[in-house]
Amino acid sequence: MTKVFPEDSVGLVTPQTFHFDEPLTLASGRELKAYDLVVETYGELNASKSNAVLICHALSGHHHAAGFHSEDDRKPGWWDKYIGPGKPIDTNRFFVVSLNNLGGCHGSTGPRSINPDTGKVWGKDFPNLRARDWVNSQARLADKLGIQQWAAVVGGSLGGMQAMRWALEYPERLRHCVVIASAMKLTAQNIAFNETARQAITSDPNFCGGDYEAEGTYPKDGLSVARMIGHITYLSGDGMGQKFGRELRSGSFALGSDEPVEFQVESYLRYQGDAFSDSFDANTYILMTKALDYFDLAREYDNDPVKAFSHAQCKFLVVSFTTDWRFAPERSREIANALIAANKSVSYAEVESEFGHDAFLIPIEDYQNIFTSYMKGIEIDD
Amino acid sequence: MTKVFPEDSVGLVTPQTFHFDEPLTLASGRELKAYDLVVETYGELNASKSNAVLICHALSGHHHAAGFHSEDDRKPGWWDKYIGPGKPIDTNRFFVVSLNNLGGCHGSTGPRSINPDTGKVWGKDFPNLRARDWVNSQARLADKLGIQQWAAVVGGSLGGMQAMRWALEYPERLRHCVVIASAMKLTAQNIAFNETARQAITSDPNFCGGDYEAEGTYPKDGLSVARMIGHITYLSGDGMGQKFGRELRSGSFALGSDEPVEFQVESYLRYQGDAFSDSFDANTYILMTKALDYFDLAREYDNDPVKAFSHAQCKFLVVSFTTDWRFAPERSREIANALIAANKSVSYAEVESEFGHDAFLIPIEDYQNIFTSYMKGIEIDD
Repeated sequence: MTKVFPEDSVGLVTPQTFHFDEPLTLASGRELKAYDLVVETYGELNASKSNAVLICHALSGHHHAAGFHSEDDRKPGWWDKYIGPGKPIDTNRFFVVSLNNLGGCHGSTGPRSINPDTGKVWGKDFPNLRARDWVNSQARLADKLGIQQWAAVVGGSLGGMQAMRWALEYPERLRHCVVIASAMKLTAQNIAFNETARQAITSDPNFCGGDYEAEGTYPKDGLSVARMIGHITYLSGDGMGQKFGRELRSGSFALGSDEPVEFQVESYLRYQGDAFSDSFDANTYILMTKALDYFDLAREYDNDPVKAFSHAQCKFLVVSFTTDWRFAPERSREIANALIAANKSVSYAEVESEFGHDAFLIPIEDYQNIFTSYMKGIEIDD
Repeated sequence: MTKVFPEDSVGLVTPQTFHFDEPLTLASGRELKAYDLVVETYGELNASKSNAVLICHALSGHHHAAGFHSEDDRKPGWWDKYIGPGKPIDTNRFFVVSLNNLGGCHGSTGPRSINPDTGKVWGKDFPNLRARDWVNSQARLADKLGIQQWAAVVGGSLGGMQAMRWALEYPERLRHCVVIASAMKLTAQNIAFNETARQAITSDPNFCGGDYEAEGTYPKDGLSVARMIGHITYLSGDGMGQKFGRELRSGSFALGSDEPVEFQVESYLRYQGDAFSDSFDANTYILMTKALDYFDLAREYDNDPVKAFSHAQCKFLVVSFTTDWRFAPERSREIANALIAANKSVSYAEVESEFGHDAFLIPIEDYQNIFTSYMKGIEIDD
């Protein structure tokens, strides 16, 4: 019996690997001689090639944004609530391209790949990357797909940073830029959380200075703590309170017991850290958090966001969530205000939500409506 | 040449150790057969013994709250800005008692002490403690000092929890209760941060399941990450932004450099983690964070704070700080509102500050004035 996927699902999807032979010069000055990008696409590219939407992923994301890899797949892609027939990014209209970024650990060239110069795994020697490197590699992917101009480049969090960078680096190659729960640069507190996460990884003796693959070890414990730190900051305090309260998973608060009690929130977090560290690569985690820390949209524009955005030619949708304290609404308002001051077309929505930063991944009616309405307004040549 | 200490300093102080032979039954049902408490006192106990103030310390605190241990001491005690001649807790009027709590690592009986039953270091086998255990041990210390009733019991954060517990457990033994930057119970987010910190410690291979002393190792890296996590949460996001911004300590953001940049906030945090892990005990850190998590003022009063506080007989000062997100002003307002509903006398102040939770340790004019004024109003028999 063939499994029937939901009607609004893109159904079974298969990743493809694109190989790039032309060397890519990175922002750091180093060069990748050749690289692979793993890509999924949903929907059909129209004849005029005007309906393509690029999805840029966040810290722990990858190419599998929608649909299922097999009939047994228990969970769909990470943004399945937002990509599919009739969903905000409607695959009946749009041809959606989702990739695993360079430096990732889901098939694209990254720290787990072989360094052609040494014949060994890159590991810690994989080059530092900045958002612009991803954007450049994505532009080459667009070339290969025959897409001269994206209908929209869309991303949440670190993905939103890439979308904004697209608007500045390739202004003529996108008509719309959708920036969700993002920021023009991280705050000191954000950097501090990232650094603490990195410290948890690098101080794990199994990290071996980043050479764990060569040593046959893996810094699972450090990566697990890193993910726990991240996870707390992606949720809101109120949201955690509503979800877990002070409920016990085991043990008893009764006086007269020396059994340590365990709160549900503790076992939940440990589970999250454990599951993540089974599937993610520690060097990629360090690389991605560094790219977040480095990102500073307006640095090369005299630190003037208005000057930066004056280069953009596309229209913008900017979305934030009320309880997101990692990428607070204030950060999104800064983006919207700079766009207005630069005389750009921008829609800004601050969505009520209890889900903190994670809200951008979660179905929330207001958010779905705003997103759907904006995407419907994107014109496509038939 | 003798060093001259500032006029408003208590000057040179010497800790004393008090030994207790009578077994102490703990909330867990276990028993400490005997124990030591390390204590400092500042000022003079008056003839009527009515001017004694007890200082309860927070997570990483200890007995050395004010003054200097030697003429070479570079830094005074942790609350020196608030204890001394003419300071809010005025040692010209008050006899101040400050101790290292049971379970601590600064001389009082704790995980680093010898378990008399085994002749070996307690380590991870030291009993779980709850705030009431500290209060009971402090009551015995009061007995030993001949103090029947404290003029005030004072504490910030976890110290405030002890002060509140005093008001419920020994209502006739204190006239005033000063609760600063505290809460009646932790939120799920707070517990989550504590659990992540503990996970950083226990997953350090040098933790050895808590038996690191016996193994001759020490989980310095894990404790350092734990402290970094804590430290971020004690500061406000805005405060960190103002203090560090995105300033670089080294490296350059210039494109064309593969050198990793280092933000000032990163090196600051690593320094904090490193320094703390040199001086603190990992098992104590676990024990203290667990005591924080367990604390739930009203649990045994049908989860009704009003019912809980109805047992109190003292007057209260409750203070919170606007940017404290670990023990938010809302938590203090809950305390104040429950006290009002229980017909108790309470003064509540929400102090403007950019310093987050750490504000309770920092000189802030409004806070100093409020604190001074309240303490001046405390009557003492001469």
